[in-house]
Amino acid sequence: MLKGNALVGQSGGPTTVINASLAGVIKGALSTDAIETIYGAEHGIEGVLAENFVNLTERFSDKEQLELLINTPAAYLGSCRRKLPKEFDETFDKIFDIFKKNNIAYFFYIGGNDSMDTVNKLSQYAKQINYPINIIGVPKTIDNDLAVTDHTPGFGSAAKYIATSLREVARDSQVYDSNTVTIIEIMGRNAGWLTAAAALARTDKECAPHLIYLPELAFDVDKFLADVEKVSKTHKNVIAVVSEGIKTAEGKYVCEGATADIVDSFGHKQLSGTARVLSDMIHNKFGWKVRSIEFSLLQRCGAHVASQTDLSEAEAVGTAGVEAAVRGETGMMMYFKRVSDAPYKIEICSSDISKIANVERVVPREWINEEGNDILQPAIDYMLPLIQGENKVKFENGLPVYLKR
Amino acid sequence: MLKGNALVGQSGGPTTVINASLAGVIKGALSTDAIETIYGAEHGIEGVLAENFVNLTERFSDKEQLELLINTPAAYLGSCRRKLPKEFDETFDKIFDIFKKNNIAYFFYIGGNDSMDTVNKLSQYAKQINYPINIIGVPKTIDNDLAVTDHTPGFGSAAKYIATSLREVARDSQVYDSNTVTIIEIMGRNAGWLTAAAALARTDKECAPHLIYLPELAFDVDKFLADVEKVSKTHKNVIAVVSEGIKTAEGKYVCEGATADIVDSFGHKQLSGTARVLSDMIHNKFGWKVRSIEFSLLQRCGAHVASQTDLSEAEAVGTAGVEAAVRGETGMMMYFKRVSDAPYKIEICSSDISKIANVERVVPREWINEEGNDILQPAIDYMLPLIQGENKVKFENGLPVYLKR
Repeated sequence: MLKGNALVGQSGGPTTVINASLAGVIKGALSTDAIETIYGAEHGIEGVLAENFVNLTERFSDKEQLELLINTPAAYLGSCRRKLPKEFDETFDKIFDIFKKNNIAYFFYIGGNDSMDTVNKLSQYAKQINYPINIIGVPKTIDNDLAVTDHTPGFGSAAKYIATSLREVARDSQVYDSNTVTIIEIMGRNAGWLTAAAALARTDKECAPHLIYLPELAFDVDKFLADVEKVSKTHKNVIAVVSEGIKTAEGKYVCEGATADIVDSFGHKQLSGTARVLSDMIHNKFGWKVRSIEFSLLQRCGAHVASQTDLSEAEAVGTAGVEAAVRGETGMMMYFKRVSDAPYKIEICSSDISKIANVERVVPREWINEEGNDILQPAIDYMLPLIQGENKVKFENGLPVYLKR
Repeated sequence: MLKGNALVGQSGGPTTVINASLAGVIKGALSTDAIETIYGAEHGIEGVLAENFVNLTERFSDKEQLELLINTPAAYLGSCRRKLPKEFDETFDKIFDIFKKNNIAYFFYIGGNDSMDTVNKLSQYAKQINYPINIIGVPKTIDNDLAVTDHTPGFGSAAKYIATSLREVARDSQVYDSNTVTIIEIMGRNAGWLTAAAALARTDKECAPHLIYLPELAFDVDKFLADVEKVSKTHKNVIAVVSEGIKTAEGKYVCEGATADIVDSFGHKQLSGTARVLSDMIHNKFGWKVRSIEFSLLQRCGAHVASQTDLSEAEAVGTAGVEAAVRGETGMMMYFKRVSDAPYKIEICSSDISKIANVERVVPREWINEEGNDILQPAIDYMLPLIQGENKVKFENGLPVYLKR
């Protein structure tokens, strides 16, 4: 068993439950003899390179603070979007010098697709230089697009936020006795999991959202306009949900030209404005009252309506990551294996990181209807267990209480 | 004491608690001998003119349904934006013929500024033709812009939604160790009450939002850019909140040109895009990562995080409206009089509707800082009691349960 200090970082877009995973890692570290002190790297790998560490063993000696961390949205340690170089250059030497200097024997990285690439490279490099360290990836992404795992921590809470808000917005959008179209834009560049989650808002008597468009299929503007017109014959107030990432058959984002072209450091274009482009089209064609709504950041930080299932799983997967590392695993990502649907039951396992890094898992075609404007029951059955249970967030003076740095 | 049936309608933009007021009216009507049956007009005055009535006495004989109505966002009866003609024309004759035919002795209209104009005109007309009816306005608007009343039902819940979401978004926006600017756009065309409510998110250790711009003051783009630059020297992640209705000194909306010009039936321009225009400006000037977020409809229908104080007051003001009408009052709007700040205590009174209709109450200049980019403590002290207490909304299968039509 390796003995030494541990280091944990958070990376990529934050989620509602990424701090629950951090709390899980801290709890795991505090309860094993293999780890002396657990440090947090501020702003992910940036903080490793700058040696910006917080002593989490000290910071969380008060258990109440640790419980508060679980319910606090967004990356407590700060995040980054830095990708390590393709080749093993001096960046890697620097990281391992810092590891050595601080006697780091365990490194945990909580993140999504791009972050698992970091875990993959660091563990390969460690092997190459024969550095004794166990490196484990803890999954995190609202997008639910990681391979191997049944679902990702963060998805359930975002899905619950979306379905809750959709149910409420649908009420609001349906009060007028005239034709209206409300278009809601949901995050998810290439994977439509969150957009699909909007369907959870439907119950036997409610039929909104009426139309759902995922980025998995090419988006046909004419078909969309025809779909809206068709629904409007039976429902005066049409509610359509679109992924921010929908593209035409020619591969052009629907929102292209709607905003200044902003590209993040992974080279991803910042998407937004899809709903607005479409609602303008509807208004121009039919003259109806339209409204476009982007759930934007709200969907990934709405801790006051987080899924308790998601929170518990996020914490558990963090602790399981520590246990796996202490057992001697490295270059692995923890994941959820669904062992039963009814009752819903998962197991936490680990998988070779190289199978996961840089792979995107999308919504299967057979879970989308033939017309490509709705999702099917198997998708609902898959998602529903993930939004169960309500976060018992503490309110003080009318507002939720979150942990302060 | 007048005896007969009662009619109630809902009008204008819905709120989270407009149904609590409806429930209050129904409870009041069910508990007085003066009212035989209470009917609901579908889509406000449109439903009166079309004689589209729902028998609420029957519909809500089950008390559980009435309790569920209280927690359900958006206008249960549907809403409208129809304004009655300036002159007493045949529309008025038609309305009173329908009142007579249905033996309507009480009419309650739940709405905002424009709806109080309807109450005003109908009660004047009734007086002119000597028709025995008592007509009472029940206030409703998230905008908090009605005259006479200390605040309006709906404001507290929208304020709580905004402050909660702001607190969460601020966390999310502050995870990166690079300059970012997040601009949040809040509803409120001429009155900045809701924009001011964003300040409630601040606590001793949190300073977001850093900048707040209300529509009460002319908006100076150059000053805004300088403000953001100044804040960025001490806070890498700047969070600014703007009202959708901010205008330049020349009276031009900042968002003008950002969206198709859509005008509602009251002649109000549909505003939106202000945050986007400003964030594009920031990006162009400083090259920083920017994000614009519109809280949009979410802020007026987020029942899962409604203020219990607001809900209780909204219900009480509805019931008080019935009691006032039965006492013989007509042409009045119910309102809140604040009798004490600590402990917070209000009384429900009634005021002549002509003092209220078509008057807009804005944030006083002395509650805004001299620079015009923040609000001052008296505004916080005024708002804080209104967001206290959490709605005990029932969740089933992971989602809030609302009343179905």
